[in-house]
This record gives sequence, C-alpha cells and structure tokens, in this order.
Amino acid sequence: MKLATFEGGRGARLGALAADGETLVCLTSTGQPMLASMQALIEAGAEGLAAARAALEEAAETVPLADVRLLAPLPLPPQIRDASTAPRHIANAPVGMRRLAAVLTGDGDPGPFEGTVPDIYKAQPIFYITNRFSVAGHGDTITWPRYSDYMDYELEVAVVIGKGGRDIAAADAMEHVFGFTIFNDFSARDTQLREMQGMLGPAKGKSFDAGNVFGPWIVTRDEIADYRDLRCVAKINGKLVTDSRLGAMLHGFEDMIAFISNAETLHAGEIIGGGTVDDGCGLERFEFLSDGDEVELTVDGIGTLRNRVVRGA
Amino acid sequence: MKLATFEGGRGARLGALAADGETLVCLTSTGQPMLASMQALIEAGAEGLAAARAALEEAAETVPLADVRLLAPLPLPPQIRDASTAPRHIANAPVGMRRLAAVLTGDGDPGPFEGTVPDIYKAQPIFYITNRFSVAGHGDTITWPRYSDYMDYELEVAVVIGKGGRDIAAADAMEHVFGFTIFNDFSARDTQLREMQGMLGPAKGKSFDAGNVFGPWIVTRDEIADYRDLRCVAKINGKLVTDSRLGAMLHGFEDMIAFISNAETLHAGEIIGGGTVDDGCGLERFEFLSDGDEVELTVDGIGTLRNRVVRGA
Repeated sequence: MKLATFEGGRGARLGALAADGETLVCLTSTGQPMLASMQALIEAGAEGLAAARAALEEAAETVPLADVRLLAPLPLPPQIRDASTAPRHIANAPVGMRRLAAVLTGDGDPGPFEGTVPDIYKAQPIFYITNRFSVAGHGDTITWPRYSDYMDYELEVAVVIGKGGRDIAAADAMEHVFGFTIFNDFSARDTQLREMQGMLGPAKGKSFDAGNVFGPWIVTRDEIADYRDLRCVAKINGKLVTDSRLGAMLHGFEDMIAFISNAETLHAGEIIGGGTVDDGCGLERFEFLSDGDEVELTVDGIGTLRNRVVRGA
Repeated sequence: MKLATFEGGRGARLGALAADGETLVCLTSTGQPMLASMQALIEAGAEGLAAARAALEEAAETVPLADVRLLAPLPLPPQIRDASTAPRHIANAPVGMRRLAAVLTGDGDPGPFEGTVPDIYKAQPIFYITNRFSVAGHGDTITWPRYSDYMDYELEVAVVIGKGGRDIAAADAMEHVFGFTIFNDFSARDTQLREMQGMLGPAKGKSFDAGNVFGPWIVTRDEIADYRDLRCVAKINGKLVTDSRLGAMLHGFEDMIAFISNAETLHAGEIIGGGTVDDGCGLERFEFLSDGDEVELTVDGIGTLRNRVVRGA
C-alpha cells in the first residue's frame, strides 16, 4: 500500500492510494481509531494494516489525488535520525565543503579533487538526530532560511519504524520496518560548514522550518522486494542531476536498526534516513540551488517528491 | 513553583512542591485538563500557572515526597537540544578525548595539557539534538550501555520552553522560558570518541536508554533571579568533584533561544541544555565512573538530582 496524509478540509486525513494511482481512499472516514492517522496506523501493527487494506478495497470515500494537498506522511514524526552511508557521497561531500570554504574565505574555488571515505564510515553507521518539527510534504514550497546563501537538496530513502524494540538483531530488523519514503534533507551548506567546526554535527544547517521533506507517501515494506535495487533520480527544473541506486550503501537499514537499537529503544513511527545517495546532492558537483528552483526526487517503487525552494524575505 | 512529575500508583501525575519542601501537592487530582500533565500545563501558559498556584495553595491531595518515585519532569519531552557554552569545558573536554584516544590505542595517557576554545564556540552557540525518548528522572538507576567502558556524567542546567515561537529576539527570549531544571547528560566517552570522527556529532555516545536525566523538578522562571549566579555542584559517592557557576557561559539562554529560533519554530516543552558547566564532567579531569557509583548534582535554587549507574548485563 501507498499510505498518505492529506489535508482534507477537515484537518489531516489518512489515505491509501487506489490501484489507478490517481485516487486516494480516505481511511480516516471509516471512523476506526487505528485509521485516524498515520501514527495510529503504525502503532496498530498488523491489525492496522489489515484494516487499512479492507478499507482500501471498500473505497467508501475517495478523493482525486490531484484535488488534495499532501502533507508529510507523518506530519510530526516521533523522531528523525539521518545517517550517511553512500561511499561516493561520503567521499565527495567534504570535497565540496572544502571548495565552499575556499570560496567563502575569498581564495576562490580550487576545483574538484579526489575524496576518501574515512574508516569510521566503513566501521559503523554514522548518524545524527534532526528537528522532527521541521517537516514538510510533497508540493510544499520551502523557504530558504535568511541566514544561508548556499542551499542544497539531498536525495535519500528513509524507513519508518513499525514495531518498536531494543537490541534488535540485524536479521530481524526488517520486521521492524513499517515502510519506505523519500526524504529530501534540504541543507544550508554555508551554515553547515561553519557550525560543523564545533564537532557536534549539523544544527541550523539542517534544522529550519520545512527543511525535512518526506513523501509523497509511505510505501509499506511488502511492496519493496529489495531496497538496494531502487533507482533514485533527482531533477532540478526538469534537468536530471542524480541517477543512483542504494546498492552501494556501506550499511543497510538492517545494520542501522541493529546499531541504533543497541541499548536504545526504537519506537513506532521513528524515521531513519538512509543517507544521501551517491551523487545525491549538489555539494558533490559544487552546484547549489537558486531562488525558485523546483527539486523533483523520484525513487522507483515509491514515487515522486517535488518541492520548490524560494529565498526568505 | 517547583513542578514535578511523579508515579502515583495511577500513572504519571503532576505535582507541585509545598512550602515545607517535603510534600507534593497533586495537581492532576484537581481534574483540570491543563493540570493533567507537565506538557499540558506548559501548553496552557499563564492560565495554567495560575491554576497550578491555586491548586498548590488549596493542597487538596498531598503525598510525602519521600513516598513517591519522581519521573523526569517531562517524561517525554517534545525535543531535546544540548549546547556547549562553558569555556573551560570546551577547552578541556577535547584534551580528555585525546588522552582517552591515546589510552585506547595503547600509547598510554600523555597527561593533561593546555586546551583552547575554538573560535566557532565564541562566534555562535554550538548544539546538537539528542534522543528525546532516552529520558530518566531523579533516583532512577542508569544502566551503562554494554558497548561502552568509559562512562561519564555531565552537569548542566536546562531551560524548558514555555511559549513557542520563531525568530525570537534575545531581549524577549526569557519570556519564552517556562522554567529551569538540572540535566545530567550521561556520556559514553569511548563511543563518542569513535563516532565523532564521522563529523556528524555524538550519537550512541549520548543516546541510550535512560541516558538523559532531568529533574528533580522544573523550577518556574520567576524563582530564578539570575541563572548565571546559580552554583552547580557535583558529588560522586559523596565526594565533591564539580563546584561551578554558569556565569562564564559564552552564550546565555537568551542568545541560544534567539539563535535556534531563527527561521525555526520552537514549541512548548522543548528542552535546551545550556551545556556542561565548567569542570562539569569527569572527562575534564580524566576520571570516569565505576559500576555502582552514585552521581549527585545540586544546583542552588533548583534542587538535587541523584542517580546510580550500574554496568549493563
């Protein structure tokens, strides 16, 4: 199933995409508490999914997809972690940062050079927690924070935790995944460059209102045979800029879930971003977004997440 | 007012400390929705505080403080940020990390040396977001994660946001503070040393079940004339190890709130840790906790937060 949250005139509603791909079946309208919201559905486990499937088949109340505003599928995720696992991205993003530093200090862009993958990224998943309130959905316009002049997209696939747990073995980890979604981790690169000198990771470079975009919906785990095969494409104003796959991930979602849940309880609805895919952001090409750009991320088997960025007033 | 959340046999209850300092008045028992929980009270603003004061005076249902288990005052904070603002801590914690690195690589402890405060810490608040689910309260036993051999405390004062907002001016920031609490940011130093090579900040070194301890209660803002004057003391097994004040903070809570809320909405109940106080952790002295140690943090005007750490099975 493809499960969406949409603004239905009566607040946020849970919907499931019909087989035609153009109609949303409103699950909230069934009145069942476990179909009241995405978070309620996730917490309801297998029983919730069965109820959603039944409601989707019955299709009592439907609305054309084109007529609704999609929200982030989880409008207020319980928590958001974001990892960095794609080797070319890990090697090349710091190259972009050093080029940006040279530009900002007036030395001028030294041009591209060879990056490397630090050993720690091979040894274990590296991740941080980002602002769970700074969330937006498909179609939302993202207002660039005033403090930044170098805005970038990041194309990621994220998992949404279904069944919570602690000390989850990698072999069991996929049973704890509710589904997959697309994550555009908009990033203020000049801000990030500055604050990451402080060694505590990204802060205002990644956390600003509407900076974490998810969607267009969550695809349930059963629909994705092998997430490593998913083709991930980004277009800016219609021009192809990223064409990648997750296959090269140094740590798959199974390992990430096992790693994170070591002595730390994961809860239903928590989101884990798998990390920017290889070639999945402008920093790697040393290209940044401009006022009014439209960023379109497509992941096969999930969908397309499209947003416009505009400069803040 | 000193506002606590306690386990009252019927789930978590909101309480206010009576003038005797030994009795909790149960606010939840009034049946008023805005006194149902700490989060509800915070969201209710001035009206909630007035209702809490009236209920405290009436003292309809009381319980001896000694008879209850205190929970974290906000058992599930909407979000937790933690900054690093104390200059001696900023200079000396990395010295401790380099000494630890030398020990772990077999080179042996090189002994103390002079640290410095990186310019970026003077220029702006440096902070990260930590796991809001990994919360515990006064009196809880903290189980050391199995993956770490170097456990440490961190003595901090945190503010709890009352009225939310965005683009808050520093001059108005204290109006957005609901109150103050003590924060023990338990830290797995060997884990932190390893993962921070990845440049995305602390992760498993700071996030593990019960690793973020708050309490014993929240003191409302009106009771703290100048937070920079608060004396902050830590004892391990009764021995004084930290005796510090917040006065030296490079960025006060006013500046932190202004900085964070730039293009980013703050919400009621969000917690901002002001950072480990100077000399406020063992890493600065190159001393770590042992199995069974009792850590007692006292901040004048707030109270005492006491926890035991035990090695995980």
